[in-house]
Amino acid sequence: MKQFGAEFLGTFWLVLGGCGSAVLAATFPNVGIGLLGVSLAFGLTVLTMAYAIGHISGCHLNPAVSIGLWAGGRFPANKLLPYIVAQVLGAIAAGGILYLIASGAAGFDVAKGFASNGYGEHSPGGYSLQAALLIEIVMTMFFVLVILGATDQRAPAGFAPLPIGLALTLIHLVSIPVTNTSVNPARSTGVALYAGGWAIEQLWLFWLAPIIGALIGALAYRLIGSEK
Amino acid sequence: MKQFGAEFLGTFWLVLGGCGSAVLAATFPNVGIGLLGVSLAFGLTVLTMAYAIGHISGCHLNPAVSIGLWAGGRFPANKLLPYIVAQVLGAIAAGGILYLIASGAAGFDVAKGFASNGYGEHSPGGYSLQAALLIEIVMTMFFVLVILGATDQRAPAGFAPLPIGLALTLIHLVSIPVTNTSVNPARSTGVALYAGGWAIEQLWLFWLAPIIGALIGALAYRLIGSEK
Amino acid sequence: MKQFGAEFLGTFWLVLGGCGSAVLAATFPNVGIGLLGVSLAFGLTVLTMAYAIGHISGCHLNPAVSIGLWAGGRFPANKLLPYIVAQVLGAIAAGGILYLIASGAAGFDVAKGFASNGYGEHSPGGYSLQAALLIEIVMTMFFVLVILGATDQRAPAGFAPLPIGLALTLIHLVSIPVTNTSVNPARSTGVALYAGGWAIEQLWLFWLAPIIGALIGALAYRLIGSEK
Amino acid sequence: MKQFGAEFLGTFWLVLGGCGSAVLAATFPNVGIGLLGVSLAFGLTVLTMAYAIGHISGCHLNPAVSIGLWAGGRFPANKLLPYIVAQVLGAIAAGGILYLIASGAAGFDVAKGFASNGYGEHSPGGYSLQAALLIEIVMTMFFVLVILGATDQRAPAGFAPLPIGLALTLIHLVSIPVTNTSVNPARSTGVALYAGGWAIEQLWLFWLAPIIGALIGALAYRLIGSEK
Repeated sequence: MKQFGAEFLGTFWLVLGGCGSAVLAATFPNVGIGLLGVSLAFGLTVLTMAYAIGHISGCHLNPAVSIGLWAGGRFPANKLLPYIVAQVLGAIAAGGILYLIASGAAGFDVAKGFASNGYGEHSPGGYSLQAALLIEIVMTMFFVLVILGATDQRAPAGFAPLPIGLALTLIHLVSIPVTNTSVNPARSTGVALYAGGWAIEQLWLFWLAPIIGALIGALAYRLIGSEK
Repeated sequence: MKQFGAEFLGTFWLVLGGCGSAVLAATFPNVGIGLLGVSLAFGLTVLTMAYAIGHISGCHLNPAVSIGLWAGGRFPANKLLPYIVAQVLGAIAAGGILYLIASGAAGFDVAKGFASNGYGEHSPGGYSLQAALLIEIVMTMFFVLVILGATDQRAPAGFAPLPIGLALTLIHLVSIPVTNTSVNPARSTGVALYAGGWAIEQLWLFWLAPIIGALIGALAYRLIGSEK
Repeated sequence: MKQFGAEFLGTFWLVLGGCGSAVLAATFPNVGIGLLGVSLAFGLTVLTMAYAIGHISGCHLNPAVSIGLWAGGRFPANKLLPYIVAQVLGAIAAGGILYLIASGAAGFDVAKGFASNGYGEHSPGGYSLQAALLIEIVMTMFFVLVILGATDQRAPAGFAPLPIGLALTLIHLVSIPVTNTSVNPARSTGVALYAGGWAIEQLWLFWLAPIIGALIGALAYRLIGSEK
Repeated sequence: MKQFGAEFLGTFWLVLGGCGSAVLAATFPNVGIGLLGVSLAFGLTVLTMAYAIGHISGCHLNPAVSIGLWAGGRFPANKLLPYIVAQVLGAIAAGGILYLIASGAAGFDVAKGFASNGYGEHSPGGYSLQAALLIEIVMTMFFVLVILGATDQRAPAGFAPLPIGLALTLIHLVSIPVTNTSVNPARSTGVALYAGGWAIEQLWLFWLAPIIGALIGALAYRLIGSEK
């Protein structure tokens, strides 16, 4: 129960901090934080939470990460479902709190996207479904590879939250224009439910692509990282 | 006495660095640091000071943090009052030095806000009292949760100042548009006294909400982080 | 084979993350990440990968770095060629994936440069061949000096990926306007092949200068860093 | 000799990286790095070099730091002069290389300031001599306090370069608008010699104020940080 509570709170923090920075601060007039600030925010949610709850639940905060760790032989199959449920519930709860806060100022309109992920006409830069699928797969693949490598027992102990959190920052620095960056089905779900419409219709891609990417990442690390 | 001196100097640094970056550099023409730079500055005040004086006073720099650590069973009740007094005095002293520096250029007007926290018509983005209250509570809750988690004896030793400082950066990335971000009653007080008027009238919220948030954060970490 | 696979994947990540941020996100309307975001992205590719694969291949990701480490007495000559081949192939593969993604939106034109390095009329800021040569040599020299110093057995263990990755960020903060920043012949090659034309004609400088700089850096560290 | 070589190269890197980012990249059209990027660059010169040469010379890179460490009882008086000479020579050499690079593009004019420090009409934001003096003293005081605290034997080992480098970033985030930020007489001298005129006439303040600040910082840490 403590582990599921930790995953719930951690994923809450990821969505509140990451999507919150996008909704509230990215385009603030004149001094907005832009895509760079949003990228930093997403990464820092993971960096900070990994030090705070890593010793409790491992701090996955992401169904694709849990699946990647399972495929990499680091996480038991019987915990997959409860972890994923806790992550999705935490993301949805954070989406609700963010909705309450954001609607406290004039001009807020959840239908503008609410930081949802999308492709085609709902891609921030108008990228096609194929481009969206490709970038989400590749980015999640490398995210899982960094996670498996940085938590390898041969890597220096204690540092893993830094490269893992900052890998998420890097991923956003590249891919926000393409899909608004998911690599995390819980994060996508947690805001799409409020945005509704196209955000829910396109949600399938942000479950499918990150999971495929995570499996490829786990395979890649088995190829280069096994000790034999 | 050394501990109180350290808290005084540390909170001085937090206000001088954080509020100073907001007052002096955020909107500098063409090359201003914006909300992203201010967010980084606030976080770095804590990150740097935590390595510099953590071994002296624990580097709270924030009445809500001291109260959260007390509620989390990490700080004795009899030190609460002297710590809070040292923090508030350090913040007020820093506000004075910042006032002296800022008034050294034409066009400075302390009544423009002087980096004070506010809600309603004094929220940077025009957010309501309810939104302000909610975000300050939630952000302080997670700040205290990160502090308790990252300083847990099961977390890797020596790293705690990184997630704690960067959590403050993250909090600012999200919430400056709503309240100008407090999560720290001493920081709010240290500039409001100079700004006067509405900044003092609204100061109550930036004592109340962070303290409530800190208590919830301590409770949350007791639920997920206890070793039994 | 595991080492070459690691260098292939690592350099793939460097080009996809660094050049990808430049091509996809640097000039995104209103909220683009700018040169600061691109600088951060390049540094984070190395920081993250060094924790992920440092224990497998040492994480060079750069022919100039491999040559510098060899000149510094830290890397055997017989591995130079396979490492460099793996790095260049990884960079070219990443350039291909980036091309597929970038061409998924209207308005993409690989002939705009595709993040290639250049001098003279192809320098972002119109800098001369001499300036380009000088800055690439000096920047690679210090990059190798930081690598040799931070991985010295007298330096604190486990931290090296932080200064090494962030040194690459710093190098980009200074030198993107001059050459678009190479200091890495594989990175230059991986995008020039797609951009074609001038990018290939000017590629010689981005092999020559980084290698010269790496040799000088190795010599400098021998002078100041030898233990005798 | 190795120590002086290390201080020479390290201060060269500080000026080339910090002032170089200001001269070459801060105001690059549309995607310039701004004061935030310059602040990051200055901090990263120290962060990276501290891991690279900390084990050789202690990585002061700054006459005020050497004096502060001496006043704090951490550095012998007989090394002060050679360290300061090496730092100033390194800074001047870097200023020369930067001049060569910067003059490789049309429109460069060293008389625009060349990243020199100034007050009054030569302050970036038009701040008075009094404001300049005050901020340089206070900022250097806290810089030395962070250095003494983070390298205290009670602080966690190996981490010191992170808070020290990032303290320099923080200092720049606040004070570039006031004086263009010195806190380092060598850095000021290394560019003023090329800018000439007012930059040299105002150089006295950027020796005097940082040294006063360093002495106060050392005194402050003796008061709060002594173990008795």
